[in-house]
Amino acid sequence: MRLRLDVSYDGADFSGWAVQPDRRTVAGVMNDALHRLYGQDVHFGLTVAGRTDAGVHATGQVCHLDLPVTEFPEKLLYRLAGILPVDVRVTSLREVPETFNARFSATFRRYEYRVTDALFGAEPLRRKDTVVWPRPLDVDRLNAAARLLIGEHDYAAYCRHKENATTIREITRLDWRRDPDGILLCTVQADAFCQSMVRSLVGAMLFAGDGRKEVDWPGSLLTMRERASAVAVAPAHGLALVEVGYPDDPDEFERQSDRTRRMRVLSTPEATA
Amino acid sequence: MRLRLDVSYDGADFSGWAVQPDRRTVAGVMNDALHRLYGQDVHFGLTVAGRTDAGVHATGQVCHLDLPVTEFPEKLLYRLAGILPVDVRVTSLREVPETFNARFSATFRRYEYRVTDALFGAEPLRRKDTVVWPRPLDVDRLNAAARLLIGEHDYAAYCRHKENATTIREITRLDWRRDPDGILLCTVQADAFCQSMVRSLVGAMLFAGDGRKEVDWPGSLLTMRERASAVAVAPAHGLALVEVGYPDDPDEFERQSDRTRRMRVLSTPEATA
Repeated sequence: MRLRLDVSYDGADFSGWAVQPDRRTVAGVMNDALHRLYGQDVHFGLTVAGRTDAGVHATGQVCHLDLPVTEFPEKLLYRLAGILPVDVRVTSLREVPETFNARFSATFRRYEYRVTDALFGAEPLRRKDTVVWPRPLDVDRLNAAARLLIGEHDYAAYCRHKENATTIREITRLDWRRDPDGILLCTVQADAFCQSMVRSLVGAMLFAGDGRKEVDWPGSLLTMRERASAVAVAPAHGLALVEVGYPDDPDEFERQSDRTRRMRVLSTPEATA
Repeated sequence: MRLRLDVSYDGADFSGWAVQPDRRTVAGVMNDALHRLYGQDVHFGLTVAGRTDAGVHATGQVCHLDLPVTEFPEKLLYRLAGILPVDVRVTSLREVPETFNARFSATFRRYEYRVTDALFGAEPLRRKDTVVWPRPLDVDRLNAAARLLIGEHDYAAYCRHKENATTIREITRLDWRRDPDGILLCTVQADAFCQSMVRSLVGAMLFAGDGRKEVDWPGSLLTMRERASAVAVAPAHGLALVEVGYPDDPDEFERQSDRTRRMRVLSTPEATA
């Protein structure tokens, strides 16, 4: 039986999503919990929508797995809550068709990035997911820089190089707002992201936003065919994966997966950030 | 020169506001920072609006102090940001008349309390300021209970006993709402609170909200003249002091202080929660 799990985590004490030997990772902790419930020899095929890097948070991560049961495990969400550490939570759990693939059926990923330019630094209760920027930021300059990055482009300048992987992506939304509490919030949505892409885009925009670079500088780097060494990757703890989109119609899960896989055969990109 | 400081803190690693020997307290950490800047022998007379208990947070705490300078220290906020630990921040700093007293000139204190009844527990990034309640809560029952606690009453049932201290207070606002993310947020405002009063009120209302007590039970305890042993004090980490109110007109600072002091002569209550 295939299940879709929605997952939230505080990325601070995780070396990212993907299982790594001798590292505490979100997938590692999730697999440990599932093995406690269903036995050590079961393979769950845990597959995630966005393979977040070390320190990156999630409030809307999605993954799927296959359970060796035939009846929906009503109490599984509650039992997982008792087993999982408090920095990762399965917030929702539902049965899905076997055509649902958390990674390949996804139509978009949306991330948010939190920055403050307050002289006093970050609000103590939000310091774990707010980056302190040491210079004043202009939200209009940030948005002017953002507009030039939207669309379908080759984001090679903003991607960690990976052999035989395309760096062409389509960003459908990229904007900044200043909340009433002074926090600058960047929202970015794309079909998928290559590794460290969101943090590289944010890093470039912040230099335009504080006046050290022109507002058209981040966009001008889209002509590059390799990673731009002038771009500083913004800190991980400001970033959170907030939503992954899927087709409304379950019949579309497989078609969307086919579309994604065809692109990946050409290109093998990774849906990471 | 008298300064008003607005202060935020994450209460988790503090034994409350007030200085205690061999304990890490907010006032202790603030005094240490000020002594580093102005010398060990200066007495700042640091005075606070709400003497929060161990583990209680603040986003809108207010205090005042007297600096041994004649010119406004423009960079003090920035210098304090560099010296203070990241779990306490001075968010604003301004010169005030010597008639301003953070404690006695205050006209109201407002607190918020965050609870979740989600089966999965608390969102990881907000687990430090969200209490997990293990039973479903009904926001209408919570509000029905709250309404019966509003007004000027003797809150002895909800106060830690203190010799010669009145437990009469005036609660001007007490209500609950369920936010879109499912969090239940209690807002309570009064002229002042006695020690552990907010958490005792919240503890009683939560038992009415989950159906273990009738909705009129919390209000019925207002007839008691001593602490109600049936009331469980709700956990500290759900509570935050969010605002302290003062007269708009600075000429009113002294009059308000006189009013408060007259009450305290009769009663010596403490403005704690």
